[in-house]
Amino acid sequence: MDKDRLDPWGSSTIKDYSRLQSEFGIEPVTPLLKRFGKLSHHLSRGIDFGQRDLGRVLDAVDKNKPYAVMSGLKPDGSFHLGNKMTADDMIYFQSLSRKATVFYSIADVEAYADNGVSFKDTSKMAVRNVADILALGLDPDRAVVYKQSEEMRVMRMSTVFSRGVTNNMLRAIYGERQIGLYLSALVQAGDILMPQLPDLGGPKPVLVPVGADQDPHIRLARDLAARHKEEFGFLPPSAIYHRLELALTGGNKMSKRIPESGFTLDDGPAAASKRVLSSFTGGRATVEEQRRLGGMADICPVYDLYRFHFAVDDRHSERVYAECIKGTRMCGECKQEAAGLVKKFLEDHHKRRDALLGDAEELLAKSRGYLAAAGK
Amino acid sequence: MDKDRLDPWGSSTIKDYSRLQSEFGIEPVTPLLKRFGKLSHHLSRGIDFGQRDLGRVLDAVDKNKPYAVMSGLKPDGSFHLGNKMTADDMIYFQSLSRKATVFYSIADVEAYADNGVSFKDTSKMAVRNVADILALGLDPDRAVVYKQSEEMRVMRMSTVFSRGVTNNMLRAIYGERQIGLYLSALVQAGDILMPQLPDLGGPKPVLVPVGADQDPHIRLARDLAARHKEEFGFLPPSAIYHRLELALTGGNKMSKRIPESGFTLDDGPAAASKRVLSSFTGGRATVEEQRRLGGMADICPVYDLYRFHFAVDDRHSERVYAECIKGTRMCGECKQEAAGLVKKFLEDHHKRRDALLGDAEELLAKSRGYLAAAGK
Repeated sequence: MDKDRLDPWGSSTIKDYSRLQSEFGIEPVTPLLKRFGKLSHHLSRGIDFGQRDLGRVLDAVDKNKPYAVMSGLKPDGSFHLGNKMTADDMIYFQSLSRKATVFYSIADVEAYADNGVSFKDTSKMAVRNVADILALGLDPDRAVVYKQSEEMRVMRMSTVFSRGVTNNMLRAIYGERQIGLYLSALVQAGDILMPQLPDLGGPKPVLVPVGADQDPHIRLARDLAARHKEEFGFLPPSAIYHRLELALTGGNKMSKRIPESGFTLDDGPAAASKRVLSSFTGGRATVEEQRRLGGMADICPVYDLYRFHFAVDDRHSERVYAECIKGTRMCGECKQEAAGLVKKFLEDHHKRRDALLGDAEELLAKSRGYLAAAGK
Repeated sequence: MDKDRLDPWGSSTIKDYSRLQSEFGIEPVTPLLKRFGKLSHHLSRGIDFGQRDLGRVLDAVDKNKPYAVMSGLKPDGSFHLGNKMTADDMIYFQSLSRKATVFYSIADVEAYADNGVSFKDTSKMAVRNVADILALGLDPDRAVVYKQSEEMRVMRMSTVFSRGVTNNMLRAIYGERQIGLYLSALVQAGDILMPQLPDLGGPKPVLVPVGADQDPHIRLARDLAARHKEEFGFLPPSAIYHRLELALTGGNKMSKRIPESGFTLDDGPAAASKRVLSSFTGGRATVEEQRRLGGMADICPVYDLYRFHFAVDDRHSERVYAECIKGTRMCGECKQEAAGLVKKFLEDHHKRRDALLGDAEELLAKSRGYLAAAGK
């Protein structure tokens, strides 16, 4: 990580999460934990480590006022473990109140521009991805899912924003970049601020769950919300930040750009568990050494699989960690166990998802109708 | 005019049109004049002075093949004399063949972003502006008029283009600008290349009539057409360039940004002719001097009114010029005559336009239906 900058388009690891607080003003989550009822596994395991203005969302929960949870994905492949993390947060924060509405953006315009994926292909992909989220627990009754290619609000807003934004402001946040990336940042700001448009119920708290490296997008959206406050009445969007998962290939963060660094919820259970078995680990050079010194769970992507996703509960995750660092858990058996959990999860997930494809199409159609009617 | 650059967003005069040829590669129109039947007044009076690839459009006329004529306007006020010039060219080139289709973009997204004009207001303005063009002679049977706010194709393409374009390329064409202007240039490139999309009939010659200062947009669109040739099969768009009209206030080119520098087709006939009467002219300090030396028609915005718009025919325009430079025509009488022509034109135009408001709405609705069906 560059000393002065987070790179939302890069694939560097973040070594020191506390620096994000001192340098970028991301606040810790821990002081707010007492305001929650049952904690999500992201909260109880310290995966969600930071926030901006999360209190505003919790106030809405307490006062039974409307708020939105906003996220999205680029349908250029299948649902990756990183998408699952964001979805897990989104679903948890939707579950906190009957007044929560999820806005989910399928960035098919960007997928087309970046990867040449045709709208017909992204359309199929979009249905599968929505089914993935439903299988993870999204409540379709309080969700609006839209494709960027059908939603002029986002494009209109990015055009409006592009007029107010200066090159200096973008350079300060993102560094010197090609205009395509700046534009995509403005489009994302359009996505983030859309739930506050007058025809969609007007200003309200909006929570955006993101990986720590995506903070520049949050800062831009908050800056734009302030600049256009007079016109739209925007509240600055809130954010909750999760840690980045380590790559199975070692070294960097898990990334869509390096498929072997993780797996997707579309991968075959056998193939995915095989990838787990051949993963980089935080193990020592020899079994003897590992027994003596303990494993290095903190740099181990296999431990991350337990902690971030597949441990059956918090105690399980803690036990894996403790056994590892004490040297009583060897990498071979640990990977075997993780591979088994991954295989089981994918088998179950595929069954759930395939049964929800019709519901996904229904949600897309219902959302399209809602957004069209709201625009009248 | 900057030595190295044309500024599509500025309001400088162009003093030496021949330099546009040597510096920017705009070709003269004159060698092609023999290929036309009846010349438009823009062609016969040397108002259209330059072109790029106009031959490709004339080939289509000769071979009875389809081609498009593309233009547009930002509905942030009323139809200005500059809009009329572009419309005159567009209508003339539509009239050359039954295989010509006009694509006309109502840039309401940009009007909203730049001037805060709401979509409801621009919608009303758009109907009036379309009626203006119909009153000037557009054939609605071969015209597609769309609002940017309803046309995702343009937004999709500008996103696609933004990925291929580099900052250096934009700086070379436009100089260092704010991102909003770069983005608006990419949106205009989307407008210009839209008629060649597969669902709108695929690659074809497209003629864009523009003022000389708009050449950077043409160069960008041609560059992008080449870059995306493999994917879309784009032909480089053709252009025809008209001279810029002098401001009634003297000095600069007529501009929407300086309302007193011209008038709109919406202005009251009395008010507009009064503006003509108080116009800057190319007259000498005294009547005696003018009789002796002759007037300076070449720097006179009143002469431009005759030449560009209101002379009843070419002979009339030539006579005004000759009398002026010979010193037999005094500015007072010349302005009186011009004011009378302007008053008469506006009275007639208002009658014609008001009778065509229903046709304008019909054309907008028909176009919307056509574009929606083509997208299926």
